[in-house]
Amino acid sequence: MRTVYLDNNATTRTAPEVVEAMLPFFSDSYGNPSSMHSFGGKVARHVREARERVAALLNADPAEILFTSCGTESDNAAIMGTLQSYPDKRHFIMSRVEHPAVLNVGHHLRARGYRVTELGVDGEGRLDLEEFRNALDDDTALVSIMAANNETGVLFPIETIARLTRERGIPFHSDAVQAVGKIPLDMKKIPVDMLSLSGHKLHAPKGIGALYIRKGTRFTPFLVGGHQEAGKRGGTENVPAIVALGKAAELALHHMGEENGRVRALRDRLERELLRRIPNSLRNGSEQERLPNTTSISFEYVEGESILLMMDAEGICASSGSACTSGSLEPSHVLRAMGVPFTAAHGSIRFSLSVYNTDEDVDHVIAKLPPIIQRIRDISPFWKDYKAGKPLSALLAGGAGDHGHSH
Amino acid sequence: MRTVYLDNNATTRTAPEVVEAMLPFFSDSYGNPSSMHSFGGKVARHVREARERVAALLNADPAEILFTSCGTESDNAAIMGTLQSYPDKRHFIMSRVEHPAVLNVGHHLRARGYRVTELGVDGEGRLDLEEFRNALDDDTALVSIMAANNETGVLFPIETIARLTRERGIPFHSDAVQAVGKIPLDMKKIPVDMLSLSGHKLHAPKGIGALYIRKGTRFTPFLVGGHQEAGKRGGTENVPAIVALGKAAELALHHMGEENGRVRALRDRLERELLRRIPNSLRNGSEQERLPNTTSISFEYVEGESILLMMDAEGICASSGSACTSGSLEPSHVLRAMGVPFTAAHGSIRFSLSVYNTDEDVDHVIAKLPPIIQRIRDISPFWKDYKAGKPLSALLAGGAGDHGHSH
Repeated sequence: MRTVYLDNNATTRTAPEVVEAMLPFFSDSYGNPSSMHSFGGKVARHVREARERVAALLNADPAEILFTSCGTESDNAAIMGTLQSYPDKRHFIMSRVEHPAVLNVGHHLRARGYRVTELGVDGEGRLDLEEFRNALDDDTALVSIMAANNETGVLFPIETIARLTRERGIPFHSDAVQAVGKIPLDMKKIPVDMLSLSGHKLHAPKGIGALYIRKGTRFTPFLVGGHQEAGKRGGTENVPAIVALGKAAELALHHMGEENGRVRALRDRLERELLRRIPNSLRNGSEQERLPNTTSISFEYVEGESILLMMDAEGICASSGSACTSGSLEPSHVLRAMGVPFTAAHGSIRFSLSVYNTDEDVDHVIAKLPPIIQRIRDISPFWKDYKAGKPLSALLAGGAGDHGHSH
Repeated sequence: MRTVYLDNNATTRTAPEVVEAMLPFFSDSYGNPSSMHSFGGKVARHVREARERVAALLNADPAEILFTSCGTESDNAAIMGTLQSYPDKRHFIMSRVEHPAVLNVGHHLRARGYRVTELGVDGEGRLDLEEFRNALDDDTALVSIMAANNETGVLFPIETIARLTRERGIPFHSDAVQAVGKIPLDMKKIPVDMLSLSGHKLHAPKGIGALYIRKGTRFTPFLVGGHQEAGKRGGTENVPAIVALGKAAELALHHMGEENGRVRALRDRLERELLRRIPNSLRNGSEQERLPNTTSISFEYVEGESILLMMDAEGICASSGSACTSGSLEPSHVLRAMGVPFTAAHGSIRFSLSVYNTDEDVDHVIAKLPPIIQRIRDISPFWKDYKAGKPLSALLAGGAGDHGHSH
């Protein structure tokens, strides 16, 4: 069966060129770059080249790139590494719609006695800059705000945030895991202090990430061990994956135009046609200020899980909420923060595209999804009641609690 | 030129069978195992199978295996995860010869106000169990003692240590990065609470490790993020590398006999012949209680770096001290802790073999190394003075300080 993969914000296909680039470093050039012999030493050159390529994608200096094992480690390292560097400051600011790799660290810090501010978003998923400005104070050790939301694709004004934090002398970290490779990010223009990226969101393999750390930023190592990564991270360099990330960064630069042209057009057509063909469907999040590859659509009065299962039977891969938090029947924390009503939030589906998607992929979804939604609604008591004009309160009293909807 | 790779304690060749096993998970079965669609879900099965294989190598339960990004992360997670679980206890015990992934965490903890006991070793590199027993007290949060030393291969009595800590109700972690795959380790027999291993030390790729956590052990996640790894570690599962580690664990079980038979015999012949052919050479560490693949030999009155460079020119890869701390002219902390005199410690070379080594490899080193040592000694003022019978103090006064030897 044809597989239509529209879950690229969860993970991407490793580009064949990337696999080819990393292959020699498993069984042939397998030396340890920290070794004193040339067999190890010659590998170090490839690590250096990969660092240059990742730096080029961000218009940064290679010395500002720290390789990590994933986006989550980059986020943890940025936050814990900064807080350890400012032991007297006890205030941390993040948004309510961060990825769990930041959000749960924030909650963990609160449990350890930190004051943690969680900034809200409006109905379009956008930050209130006035609220943000008011949250900054002399005790603020760090601000961590994502560059783009993983569920809705909504972009945050990190350039403005970076200028505001810089004025106050407060370090600013941005989880840019979903943004890097999809939109241009220029570290010479955006005065962010630290920025996380993840390989497997941009066609490198899982198990590799990076943290941009601007020169002069105070940083305490998170992974403590040997002297690798200029003393900033212990652990033998993951050479094949580092080389892979370098190659993927090079490809991402090359594909940036296509991502923002052809892929955006595919996404727009998919979204437009689904909203047009399926009644009671609505887009979640700002239409304009978002990633070119993502759309989050709510189908009212149906369960996202049912939609996913029936799409799966047609070979269509997408997600409800984020893969990192799926398995739970709780509606997405992102949609809740945006105030999306539960009748819509529960039926939300994220479609996330990549350069590997085609017109045929979009045609397939446009053809298959409307009847799927109709079939689910046909057996849904909520939909019947809604069509019969019964009010929401009646629906709830009528047993929706059994389905975990009433909280 | 022929490459004779004898630096397997730094990193190993990824087995071709392991590369083959992981390849389908980059560009074909690249789904996220946490996803709700079958494209991701079918990948989860392979992660499960890999967990079973790693568990089998340790005779553990699959639920006791936590996948990490490397041995350093496993060590950091074990230590920090335990200390966070016992916030009232402020004493940490380790040995003076731990890998930097434990040793530097210990130093870091001391700087943060913990009481840290560093246990010494004798001239053979062995722990004093009486000193160990006396170090345990009611405030001890954790003991971390390696299973086998990375530089000398000396084995530590972790089964005895585990029984002693268990009697006192104190958690015990062992960095077994060098031991796993080389000697049998049975978690049903050794009552250790946590045990670290690293993929790239046993013919899996770099960038994957595991932490064995015995059921019932208190553990606080080190990498905080999504719900992956049963809530014990955030971050998308590194599927290809996890599958690779599973395959490498299977191969390691299969090769255990050869490792302790043929590889041990190769190591013994290499060591015996070098000690016999090269005057003023001596083995570092216990002859009997050590890994089958490792020998550390000191060549008096020469610099390890010079030996490495000249061996490199003959295609021989080995190391002086550990790769993780090389780049420094400081003699190895392990040999210093053993009381090896600086005249010998500076000229120490570690040879570490694997199942890929052959009789011809050993022949090559036996033929090439004696004349190398002779050539270096011919131009060494230290060696000339030593042969002329000048005492050590005269050597030092004569300018050895310039070479950083006098501390």
